[in-house]
Amino acid sequence: MNILLKISYDGTNYCGYQKQQNDKTIQEELEKALSKLYQTKISSTAASRTDRGVHALSQMATYNVDYMLIPLKNIPIALNGLLPEDIVVTNVEVVEDSFHPRYHAIEKMYEYKILNAKYQIPQLRNYTYHIKYSLDFEKMKSCCTLFLGTHDFKAFSSIGGNVVTTVRTIYKMELIKDNDIITLNISGNGFLYNMVRIIVGTIIDIGRGKKNINIIGEMFETGERKKGGKTASPNGLTLIDIKYKIK
Amino acid sequence: MNILLKISYDGTNYCGYQKQQNDKTIQEELEKALSKLYQTKISSTAASRTDRGVHALSQMATYNVDYMLIPLKNIPIALNGLLPEDIVVTNVEVVEDSFHPRYHAIEKMYEYKILNAKYQIPQLRNYTYHIKYSLDFEKMKSCCTLFLGTHDFKAFSSIGGNVVTTVRTIYKMELIKDNDIITLNISGNGFLYNMVRIIVGTIIDIGRGKKNINIIGEMFETGERKKGGKTASPNGLTLIDIKYKIK
Repeated sequence: MNILLKISYDGTNYCGYQKQQNDKTIQEELEKALSKLYQTKISSTAASRTDRGVHALSQMATYNVDYMLIPLKNIPIALNGLLPEDIVVTNVEVVEDSFHPRYHAIEKMYEYKILNAKYQIPQLRNYTYHIKYSLDFEKMKSCCTLFLGTHDFKAFSSIGGNVVTTVRTIYKMELIKDNDIITLNISGNGFLYNMVRIIVGTIIDIGRGKKNINIIGEMFETGERKKGGKTASPNGLTLIDIKYKIK
Repeated sequence: MNILLKISYDGTNYCGYQKQQNDKTIQEELEKALSKLYQTKISSTAASRTDRGVHALSQMATYNVDYMLIPLKNIPIALNGLLPEDIVVTNVEVVEDSFHPRYHAIEKMYEYKILNAKYQIPQLRNYTYHIKYSLDFEKMKSCCTLFLGTHDFKAFSSIGGNVVTTVRTIYKMELIKDNDIITLNISGNGFLYNMVRIIVGTIIDIGRGKKNINIIGEMFETGERKKGGKTASPNGLTLIDIKYKIK
């Protein structure tokens, strides 16, 4: 049986999702809990390899087992009892054997939060990127439409992604301001390595007047990463949702 | 000079505000930073002794010094450089020598956050009280007006407050629901030990149908703590603001 889990986590205390030799990762914690539950070594496959410090409201991961140990609906409760409190399984379902959480994803949604204020709010320190200097929100907002549709996002990616193509389609991109908090909601058919964080870093530079809005078009044309803003800090980023046509 | 600081903190990793022999507290961290800045032992007086795990957006504390070491406006930056990242000084002003942050407070505002959902959201685990069972929000909301005005809140306090009178006046109490998050905003001329948390615990019991709304009146009349709900967990509570007539 191919079992699909929906997982929510606070990435603050982890070196990213994907398992590594010596560092604490979400995947390692999940597989430890799964292996303890089933009393046998279990490996898993996730939709997205979120970076160190990045959070998820809805990561998706599958694992395979030969038999149903406990009723399906009890799996989240059983796993949550074995997982640390910053990782929570929120849903479970049996999917087709051929289902792959990464290859079959048709849409991913991310949220990025900026705190634009003189001082950091301590409770938000792990969940927002703190920007002290003043930002022109309207100017940043006007960037959003430029990203919509299909573009070559090469200039908005870091080396290390190891992908066939750097062309991606953005379905939705909006910027909302609520007091000192600026939230970016972005969804697309896929995202390159660090893509959301480089988009955010670039529109921040536009918002503070350090770069002109034309830089976005230039980056699409030339593919030059160095024209963009710096990669915004990981703590502001949360993987919100992943959609599938079929499971 | 009597100097008043406004302080914001994440109480998660502290045993409350007030200094203790062997535990890590906000006051201890603040006084360590002050003493380091002024190169002499400095003690401080705060408006509110928040409990272990309780947060503050705006705690107020004074300290006395004989001379102005650095320009007043630079004090927050200097202190923030010496404080851990979960404590942030956000304002500073010179006040009357006779000013006392606790005795001269005329209004305090608190916020309490409940997450009413099947699963905890990991990023909110230190900032919300997680209630799994379903709550009747409208019933809870209708409790608010019963608390307004002047009452004897003896039944809504824990032993250990050491106060002259248990009579307090509530100026404002409102309950707001935003998806799975229920937020209580409450302001009054003062609060007894654990008062907000016992109010919350009691209206939660009313919301889940375990207690009748009449219990609130009975608690005011009899002063019996045991009639109320349990003391709601500290992590949902934040001290939002403290007002003064004169400084």
